[in-house]
Amino acid sequence: MIIGIDVGGTNARALLIDPDSSEVIGRSRRSSAGSGSALSATLTEMVGELTESNDTTVESVGLGVAGLAHRSGVVHYSPNLPDLVEYPLGAELSTALGIEVTVMNDATAGTWAEAKLGAGRGCDDFILVALGTGIGTGFVSGGRLIHGAHGFAGEAGHMVVDASGPSHHTGHQGPWEYYASGSALGRMGQTQAASGHFPAALEIAGSAEDVDGFTVAAALAQGDDEARRIFAGFCRHVARGLVNLALIFDPARIVIGGGLTTMGEPLRSGVETGYRELMLGASHRPPIDIVMAQLGDDAGALGAALWAHEGL
Amino acid sequence: MIIGIDVGGTNARALLIDPDSSEVIGRSRRSSAGSGSALSATLTEMVGELTESNDTTVESVGLGVAGLAHRSGVVHYSPNLPDLVEYPLGAELSTALGIEVTVMNDATAGTWAEAKLGAGRGCDDFILVALGTGIGTGFVSGGRLIHGAHGFAGEAGHMVVDASGPSHHTGHQGPWEYYASGSALGRMGQTQAASGHFPAALEIAGSAEDVDGFTVAAALAQGDDEARRIFAGFCRHVARGLVNLALIFDPARIVIGGGLTTMGEPLRSGVETGYRELMLGASHRPPIDIVMAQLGDDAGALGAALWAHEGL
Repeated sequence: MIIGIDVGGTNARALLIDPDSSEVIGRSRRSSAGSGSALSATLTEMVGELTESNDTTVESVGLGVAGLAHRSGVVHYSPNLPDLVEYPLGAELSTALGIEVTVMNDATAGTWAEAKLGAGRGCDDFILVALGTGIGTGFVSGGRLIHGAHGFAGEAGHMVVDASGPSHHTGHQGPWEYYASGSALGRMGQTQAASGHFPAALEIAGSAEDVDGFTVAAALAQGDDEARRIFAGFCRHVARGLVNLALIFDPARIVIGGGLTTMGEPLRSGVETGYRELMLGASHRPPIDIVMAQLGDDAGALGAALWAHEGL
Repeated sequence: MIIGIDVGGTNARALLIDPDSSEVIGRSRRSSAGSGSALSATLTEMVGELTESNDTTVESVGLGVAGLAHRSGVVHYSPNLPDLVEYPLGAELSTALGIEVTVMNDATAGTWAEAKLGAGRGCDDFILVALGTGIGTGFVSGGRLIHGAHGFAGEAGHMVVDASGPSHHTGHQGPWEYYASGSALGRMGQTQAASGHFPAALEIAGSAEDVDGFTVAAALAQGDDEARRIFAGFCRHVARGLVNLALIFDPARIVIGGGLTTMGEPLRSGVETGYRELMLGASHRPPIDIVMAQLGDDAGALGAALWAHEGL
């Protein structure tokens, strides 16, 4: 058996997987709070429990971590897991378990899972964009996962798309995720609600401060005109970054993942419309498939497990 | 023997190469003007002449073409070679010569040449940026050339970096090449010269209209302060796009090529300074090498030949 663990800022979610069928045999979830050594102890326990309760043994463990996860197993930077930075998590866990442990970026891991088991199957060249609080990205090119020299590839959410734009909390001016993340959609809705142009949002959320991306999505589902206008603008921002990435990678498919995928087809078709408007010389290019991710919240843990097992 | 041909808007430049030593055995240059069938005839003659005058045979031919060169050998779009668009150049030439012919983008070809024989040697993850009239880019990731689903990868010059910026002739607003190509450097110098702030340029070029990138370079070499200021701003624009690409690819090295490399070390160090200022969380990242390309004008033809021979 193999185990993949998605180490997020709040929780660590582990999956026990049969490497032959890729079937999920067991699940476990724990708080990821605390120091590097505390987290290492938690993960060791999770692996032990999953192994024992399913009466099996584990060959390898893969961790997907939000942040700059170095190939060596050390996380260099992670806004959501500040206590983990510079801690040799991979090596510690490997020593504790006596098996190989692989550490990789969570979006990169999720991209590999979609490549092997989800919306990227059968496609050698695709881009994954995960729209949530921020933007995560991952790339498969020529059938291979783009990892980078250190394992840091896929940070396209920080790509500057409007150098004249406002400063983001990261310090960059006008990065893609400022305009096209779930947080951005919430901010756009909030601004319109506060200025009195978006009464439907006020009705749904109660107050302008409580408007978020899901409020806009709910108003859109009700057919509200202002929600439609805001959402079209948002989708165009998503598409702008995707066009940049498509100019770089020439993919045959774009896979949309992340929390916003609960919006379903309106998100997919909205991004597709924006993409067609913005792509340069679209008439000279073969058409591109824009599809939704298929593995949901499991993608990170699944991909980390698969990569630890056979990707190296 | 193998032959690589760089098919530019004005000339086709062919190299006869020994595939074992990668040594250039012969050279030929002809006008690339005319229809697709005229160009195909010209290239057939060039291959015949190079083969005969060196008393040898050729196994394969690789073409590097500026534009959207499809893997199939058909050029889908090429602003510099409009008569070539949708002409099956690869298939025609292959039939005429009776050997395999590969068609690829010129910057992608140049990147492969630098990977095998030039500034990318020994590095599995690097970015090449060619600064000339426009911006060409190419990527090697995990030791493999990024080609894309159709062969169109590497168009990062069109990447939008300032969505609030002016419209470029391509139709995109604020693409990287608007700010960071050799043409952009010339435009910046021209604007300052026309407004009277750059007398050194007027002295060198004679008039504001005649100021171009090389004028700015010449004034910089004289130690002119205004040239220094313009050039620092230009290098920051180059670095902005490179930071975007580095966030995506996590390279260990950046290779600067193209016509502007005649400026030498001031260009390299200027880009390095801009890169360090703009890269997010630079303290958490391993340092990156920024170096000059080594193969000059031969890179495109060399890379196309090597790719045709062994890259597929």
